[in-house]
Amino acid sequence: MQNSNIPTILVTNDDGFQAQGIQYLATLLGNLGNVVVVAPDSARSGAACSITPTCPVSVRKIRDNVYACSGSPVDCVKIALEKILDRKPDLVVSGINHGDNASISLHYSGTVGAALEACMKGIPAIAYSLRTHKKECDFAPYSEVIVEWAEKVLREGLPADTCLNINFPEVDCLCGSKVCRMARGLWHTEWLDAGVDDEGKKIYTLTGTFTNLEPEAADTDYWALDHGFAAITPLSLDMTDHALLARLGKSAD
Amino acid sequence: MQNSNIPTILVTNDDGFQAQGIQYLATLLGNLGNVVVVAPDSARSGAACSITPTCPVSVRKIRDNVYACSGSPVDCVKIALEKILDRKPDLVVSGINHGDNASISLHYSGTVGAALEACMKGIPAIAYSLRTHKKECDFAPYSEVIVEWAEKVLREGLPADTCLNINFPEVDCLCGSKVCRMARGLWHTEWLDAGVDDEGKKIYTLTGTFTNLEPEAADTDYWALDHGFAAITPLSLDMTDHALLARLGKSAD
Repeated sequence: MQNSNIPTILVTNDDGFQAQGIQYLATLLGNLGNVVVVAPDSARSGAACSITPTCPVSVRKIRDNVYACSGSPVDCVKIALEKILDRKPDLVVSGINHGDNASISLHYSGTVGAALEACMKGIPAIAYSLRTHKKECDFAPYSEVIVEWAEKVLREGLPADTCLNINFPEVDCLCGSKVCRMARGLWHTEWLDAGVDDEGKKIYTLTGTFTNLEPEAADTDYWALDHGFAAITPLSLDMTDHALLARLGKSAD
Repeated sequence: MQNSNIPTILVTNDDGFQAQGIQYLATLLGNLGNVVVVAPDSARSGAACSITPTCPVSVRKIRDNVYACSGSPVDCVKIALEKILDRKPDLVVSGINHGDNASISLHYSGTVGAALEACMKGIPAIAYSLRTHKKECDFAPYSEVIVEWAEKVLREGLPADTCLNINFPEVDCLCGSKVCRMARGLWHTEWLDAGVDDEGKKIYTLTGTFTNLEPEAADTDYWALDHGFAAITPLSLDMTDHALLARLGKSAD
């Protein structure tokens, strides 16, 4: 039985329902509302906003309020809203991702994809990620900021077609939080030669090096992370480039 | 042997290298430059900007200048740039997708994902999609607009961090082209119950109905398509919501 005065919070991620990050997040936000976890049944790193249109998606109830789904993070949000939850949640949170999703990396992120999907459904959403690739992390230094923003968004909502992308540096103690924009960045040197497969086809393993193209820009997410701050970046669903739209529209007149 | 004065054009898609749309596009753009096709080895609908970090990706040479890749559309662009092409292409085109990628649907689109990836690498890029789900299509009505924009972008380039998303309505004769923004939209009623799987888990098939939330807005991609126009939408890599950034930044001072 859910108390209808208590917020419903949907929690998902891209690392799978068993990941440490989502378990921490679900426990922490349990203080703010009724938490329901609907997350991938295994890791889906790099899933972005992908969906599964070509084969059925399965849902398994793990225990009360915890479900594992065979689809992508976006599928998890879609299926939670339509097939699992008995009412529209007040907040969707995604994470805590093991690995940051700042700068252009957010385009590849299933963690951010899930938040964007909630946003597409008109539900306030926050993606949380930590700049680490350790499987075992200490998330305690980030609890206060996680709760602060979840409470703020539950209380005030977010404007239509926006969500929040929150990244943390790996530190014992945050220097604070910065509201900031996406840094411009470049992934390069992305493939390791891995020989040939059984059929003689060349195979490659995805890796890569990231370069921040504006390391001095103190108003960016990367700068915040590099200097020990939580990076709070509001994202827009509208990807229209309005400056170029105006320019092209004028030349088409 | 490639003539270095002739542009190099990388062509990819999300329907796979054998799809009719990519074959039409590659042939058409062969008039403008040296075309190299690097595309998924089978359909990857709904791949968005997903990448394949967890298993090796294979590449098979089908014939001269045509390669099939086991990864996502974004992987195809990444691997073409680093492992297949001998120089940075002058233009990356993706499509012609069977199905439109207008409004919020572009977030799920592998066709658009590939163009965004090229954009992330600083290469002018265009995604082309046709509002149809027929496997056999007549693309001839769109040739003129496809070539017009490919030539324009080859000649003038695009501003940094932008690419073009071009959608066509299914018509015998276009009414013209409109430079326009993404419409606001909503996907709903997205899952069909498909029973239970062998392990007793509930399974669902992804489908869905799209509602244009601003059908009267004549400056949108959906309006253009609904009225017989090609929809030319410039996209920005920067997903920062600058209006909310200013507001949140102010309240944090």
